[in-house]
Amino acid sequence: MGKGVNKAMKEIFVDLNADVGESFGVYRLGHDEELFPYLSSVNIACGLHAGDPLVMEKTVKRALEFNLAIGAHPGYPDLQGFGRRKLALSPREVKSFLIYQVGALMGFLKVQKGKLSHIKPHGALYNEAAVNPELALAIAQAVQEIDPGLILLARSGSEMVKQARLIGTRVVEEAFADRNYQENGDLVPRSHPQALISDPVEASERALIMVQEQKVQALDGTWIPLSFRSLCLHGDNPHALNLARSIRRLFQENGIRVVPLNRTAE
Amino acid sequence: MGKGVNKAMKEIFVDLNADVGESFGVYRLGHDEELFPYLSSVNIACGLHAGDPLVMEKTVKRALEFNLAIGAHPGYPDLQGFGRRKLALSPREVKSFLIYQVGALMGFLKVQKGKLSHIKPHGALYNEAAVNPELALAIAQAVQEIDPGLILLARSGSEMVKQARLIGTRVVEEAFADRNYQENGDLVPRSHPQALISDPVEASERALIMVQEQKVQALDGTWIPLSFRSLCLHGDNPHALNLARSIRRLFQENGIRVVPLNRTAE
Amino acid sequence: MGKGVNKAMKEIFVDLNADVGESFGVYRLGHDEELFPYLSSVNIACGLHAGDPLVMEKTVKRALEFNLAIGAHPGYPDLQGFGRRKLALSPREVKSFLIYQVGALMGFLKVQKGKLSHIKPHGALYNEAAVNPELALAIAQAVQEIDPGLILLARSGSEMVKQARLIGTRVVEEAFADRNYQENGDLVPRSHPQALISDPVEASERALIMVQEQKVQALDGTWIPLSFRSLCLHGDNPHALNLARSIRRLFQENGIRVVPLNRTAE
Amino acid sequence: MGKGVNKAMKEIFVDLNADVGESFGVYRLGHDEELFPYLSSVNIACGLHAGDPLVMEKTVKRALEFNLAIGAHPGYPDLQGFGRRKLALSPREVKSFLIYQVGALMGFLKVQKGKLSHIKPHGALYNEAAVNPELALAIAQAVQEIDPGLILLARSGSEMVKQARLIGTRVVEEAFADRNYQENGDLVPRSHPQALISDPVEASERALIMVQEQKVQALDGTWIPLSFRSLCLHGDNPHALNLARSIRRLFQENGIRVVPLNRTAE
Repeated sequence: MGKGVNKAMKEIFVDLNADVGESFGVYRLGHDEELFPYLSSVNIACGLHAGDPLVMEKTVKRALEFNLAIGAHPGYPDLQGFGRRKLALSPREVKSFLIYQVGALMGFLKVQKGKLSHIKPHGALYNEAAVNPELALAIAQAVQEIDPGLILLARSGSEMVKQARLIGTRVVEEAFADRNYQENGDLVPRSHPQALISDPVEASERALIMVQEQKVQALDGTWIPLSFRSLCLHGDNPHALNLARSIRRLFQENGIRVVPLNRTAE
Repeated sequence: MGKGVNKAMKEIFVDLNADVGESFGVYRLGHDEELFPYLSSVNIACGLHAGDPLVMEKTVKRALEFNLAIGAHPGYPDLQGFGRRKLALSPREVKSFLIYQVGALMGFLKVQKGKLSHIKPHGALYNEAAVNPELALAIAQAVQEIDPGLILLARSGSEMVKQARLIGTRVVEEAFADRNYQENGDLVPRSHPQALISDPVEASERALIMVQEQKVQALDGTWIPLSFRSLCLHGDNPHALNLARSIRRLFQENGIRVVPLNRTAE
Repeated sequence: MGKGVNKAMKEIFVDLNADVGESFGVYRLGHDEELFPYLSSVNIACGLHAGDPLVMEKTVKRALEFNLAIGAHPGYPDLQGFGRRKLALSPREVKSFLIYQVGALMGFLKVQKGKLSHIKPHGALYNEAAVNPELALAIAQAVQEIDPGLILLARSGSEMVKQARLIGTRVVEEAFADRNYQENGDLVPRSHPQALISDPVEASERALIMVQEQKVQALDGTWIPLSFRSLCLHGDNPHALNLARSIRRLFQENGIRVVPLNRTAE
Repeated sequence: MGKGVNKAMKEIFVDLNADVGESFGVYRLGHDEELFPYLSSVNIACGLHAGDPLVMEKTVKRALEFNLAIGAHPGYPDLQGFGRRKLALSPREVKSFLIYQVGALMGFLKVQKGKLSHIKPHGALYNEAAVNPELALAIAQAVQEIDPGLILLARSGSEMVKQARLIGTRVVEEAFADRNYQENGDLVPRSHPQALISDPVEASERALIMVQEQKVQALDGTWIPLSFRSLCLHGDNPHALNLARSIRRLFQENGIRVVPLNRTAE
């Protein structure tokens, strides 16, 4: 199977990230508190599609307590749509809205003596930037201009990865443990009944192969290559907690080390 | 009159500040571009009562071109009310909303290689914190926690000044050239017909005495002491530009040097 | 006056209302679906402190299916604070914001062939209008100007009740089954540990006495008179459902008839 | 087909409409007050892309004083983008957001004893619905469901016109006096230097031919047919007032009668 050989030759490192801090005012979303012990990195919503100053402050505090790599998770300014609807911002506008949101999060990190590790666009912005070179470039530029040490966390093989590499922005590719893939490497859309993988055992075994072999089996059975150093779990998935627990156990049994994003980076 | 003696003995320095960056989307407010040449410091709105990411980015750019001291101008999250209506946020909430807004502005400064010099609360938050010790303390703490080098720009003699001094936050007091004062040192409310002084000659002569003598004549004729190192002009005042021009000329003729806020600070 | 005698002489009618439609975008709040079978009236959030067009449309649909009296539940424009923070809107501003919100809800009622029965201000607006005559008057006027057939649903004995009666606006007083009262008739504030009554048995027995005797026992043991024709249940209370079930059963056993708000009105 | 004959045989009626009520909070936009005397219909913004409850209330008041046909001008919920950016709302979502906004405006009309005459989508929603049949249908349905007497005001020859006719929604086509057309009948985009016609004489003479001949000369010189009963003026155009004055004069001299939208309708 080769992976024994692989393990003998080099240790495998992977980051486990999740989108957190998505509550707003009286509204609770996700299971941040329970999920934190199983993660190595978090992406914190910045108030325009989810999150608010109080939620951000508290989420930063908890993330620091758990020694997680802290990332900003900026999105389109569309709270009612949770940033999941495409909004025709120009690349220049996206850049400004991104700097605004990342800056706001850095404010809380500055007060709490933490450090920003990465930026991961959210929802429709993430999906759009995965296929739109001009938008991807604007995002990669913004990440670098804010701080050249920052990492862009982007979908494996996406335009964001390409554009970031072209201009020398640090980038880490991510894959999804609880989402099904299409044969072209895209995710099966959320509207599809099989978009999510809800069985923790299935998802964790799948994640193990993904990490060890850097490939994934698409919905049509095809095996497709998948280069990534970070695995994303969805906190709003009702099965998120079981999945996280199950993945951590399986990774430990197989000698895979879960480390914060910045320690997996190029 | 003493001021000749005064001038012979020591130079007088004063900062001229204005609230800027208050446009939003298609909506234009103020005369930032025309006003900038006459100022030494600006307070930039941060998106929750006025301003947006695109306006902030552009305003930071212009302020840097004019070598102005750049401050954040956070307010209550009330765009429709322009932050001029009291909102019952707890001191803890105010602190979070302030860090959020200041952080967002720092994002643009980071990208444009600028530096934040000060923080001045806006509108109803400014007025409330002038008289509410608990709120004033929360603000003074936030300023210090974000960066101990930052200056709180606050109304002369207000609770913000007192609380900042109590906990060792840097603070600069400001006075208003184009607003009338009450005999207790408070501003005449905007609802009053004589709230604003619109004649540039009257306002600039008044400003000269204020700066030279550190006192002002209240609406009832009383002279009241007024300690300040910064003078605020209102950019949304239709007469703002004439006033600014007139003040600068009169100050120059009288040997008063206009310097950025941080160079007047304690 | 024995309640047996009372019962023999006339049937007791009471309305059971709850604040519903408080979800927003992806955020779920309350247990509307489960609660509807136990209610006779609902107050639907109108998008400025909670609710959104999609939530409103669906909530109207369900309320019509259950033949509930449908009311508008307008609040301060403060989504992040859920309308629970006082915002210094002038009475004139409150009136405009109220008409806006009520109109928006009437839009959905028009499309779905329903009819608006009443208006109940939310949160901080409700509390402020309970003690501020000028604000209470503005609200009573708005209700009447929108439609003289509309009922203002207001706290028993509040300024809203007084002002409504002064100008001839229809008004129904309400009491709270799951909230403790102070000896002056005010509610024990939410910040107090005993603000909420979470035991369904205690709350329902209390509600029975309240309805039958039109009085309630305050936290200090005093019995205070309480005139009301509607009883409010809180949908965001985790015990709301048990409480609703328990109240309905007890009312049925005691011959108290639960009828929509408009059928209890003066 | 000589226009002389035409004029002899029947009078020409046309509506002059403008988008108004686009101010927000302290932000002023447009020249509503000055423009009203020259119009026969107005389309009032409803608070989600522009306008607020206070602005709406006042705008309805003024429009009633001038006996104008009053329409709702709903847009995408994007205040910062002024509803000019495409937002990927589903047709079902658009319908809900439209009912919300139209209802809110009807609230003010109800209080002020006015009547809604029509609905005209704004900005990106207007443009998108002009070419997207599914979206156009959703809008035409919403108009009819709110009130079958309502008129949809839509761009001449657009999908909105087609879908409205298919399902029997009343519709009036409009053309633009101050915008250049492409040879396919589309407007020259705002980004193009010749998008707007700013010379009042040119625009009014052009408008006269458009009304009399129901055709317009595209930017490339081609004459294209253009069926419409309403002519739109842009209130945010700095030349709007001169244009309006000039058009009214020319129309009067040529016997063209300006009447409210509902009196031109099919």
